[in-house]
Amino acid sequence: MAVGWFYLSCYALSLLGLMCVILTIYWMQLWHGGFAWDGTSRLMFNYHPVFMVAGSVVVYSAASLVYRLPQSWVGPKLPWKIGHAVLHLLAFILTVLGLVVVFQFHNHENTVSLYSLHSWLGIVTVFLFACQWFLGFVVFLLPWVSVWLRSLLKPIHVFFGAVILFLSIASVISGINEKLFFSLNNNTQPYSSLPSEAVFANSTGMLVVVFGLLVLYILLVSSWKRPEPGILSEGQPLLRDGE
Amino acid sequence: MAVGWFYLSCYALSLLGLMCVILTIYWMQLWHGGFAWDGTSRLMFNYHPVFMVAGSVVVYSAASLVYRLPQSWVGPKLPWKIGHAVLHLLAFILTVLGLVVVFQFHNHENTVSLYSLHSWLGIVTVFLFACQWFLGFVVFLLPWVSVWLRSLLKPIHVFFGAVILFLSIASVISGINEKLFFSLNNNTQPYSSLPSEAVFANSTGMLVVVFGLLVLYILLVSSWKRPEPGILSEGQPLLRDGE
Repeated sequence: MAVGWFYLSCYALSLLGLMCVILTIYWMQLWHGGFAWDGTSRLMFNYHPVFMVAGSVVVYSAASLVYRLPQSWVGPKLPWKIGHAVLHLLAFILTVLGLVVVFQFHNHENTVSLYSLHSWLGIVTVFLFACQWFLGFVVFLLPWVSVWLRSLLKPIHVFFGAVILFLSIASVISGINEKLFFSLNNNTQPYSSLPSEAVFANSTGMLVVVFGLLVLYILLVSSWKRPEPGILSEGQPLLRDGE
Repeated sequence: MAVGWFYLSCYALSLLGLMCVILTIYWMQLWHGGFAWDGTSRLMFNYHPVFMVAGSVVVYSAASLVYRLPQSWVGPKLPWKIGHAVLHLLAFILTVLGLVVVFQFHNHENTVSLYSLHSWLGIVTVFLFACQWFLGFVVFLLPWVSVWLRSLLKPIHVFFGAVILFLSIASVISGINEKLFFSLNNNTQPYSSLPSEAVFANSTGMLVVVFGLLVLYILLVSSWKRPEPGILSEGQPLLRDGE
């Protein structure tokens, strides 16, 4: 892959991810009164979509794509592993904060938590994310696991990495849909009349899907993958083209 | 892969797919009065979730997995290609019928169509499915396309095959969530009190996710893939183990 094309793709993807987060913040700011960390008000709930899009989709994707940077293909792997783990930890913390705000808001409003399919899927996704991070840490970062066991578990780790992103996106989509049915339930501007908020939030949701699909494409397509040690074929060049 | 394990997986997956369809039918039959093809009533809408789960997820998956049957790995490929195309056409027809019933119902009720994020994602998925089928037919079934062009387009065809399944599942999840917010909106048994319908439909949604993930796993994992002509490695055996 040519250097120019690679960096263009990187910047475009980063921009798209940033756009997803900014649009979600803008949605909550413009139509739902912004944010407040007071443990009581609806303004605390407004962090929920932002933390979930930022944590479970955008930072999660950045963390997953660490090994697609050709700089990570040479030299010691440990610093990149640590970067991968730290970024995923950041994604996980944001995701847990996303849960905290919604549970706090529900408790304050005396509303039940975890009843909708969105919440069932979301909580299963966070549980899988926790297991994935913990097992990834134990197996791939701590020094006492054999190379043989790591090789055996790596495809499972990679597959579940993609699965968690897939589930996060499905959770985000069902969550945006649910939120719009909640907030646009008055008779003057129902969701079905497609007011500006609906168009804006629907478009944000579609952008999250596009972003997620591009990330999954990069994760799955071999020409972006880190070559195994000793293998640096023409199909997996090290950004030599045009340098 | 051992013969026994392969067929056990096949049967388990088929059973799971069948369960998804049966549970969706049961949901509509038990809690929403069943089905009627009269172009007017809510009973026509009830076909929508059934056709979508059956068409865009279960039959679509069966069609996608045709080349994972080791019987397809030997002899001429054309009959399997035709089977792949015919099953996908069946999946597409079911999906379009799923659209027809919901548009008919909305027209009769004077309700707007295509406003929710669920519907935006769903209609984009059906559009991609139509493009994928048409291009697949032209490129891989009609005889005048060169082997070179087919090889070039195959990874794209395979990737979009998985993408469409991914989007279908996300559409189904947001659709079940939306339907439950519509139907469980009374004060005696709201969705948040998790009445039996909510538990049943949520569980059906989670089962669709599990089914879809298993299908994606089989589609992506190399040991299930059809070997390229002339290549029949130990990693891709032809059900010889234990025969």
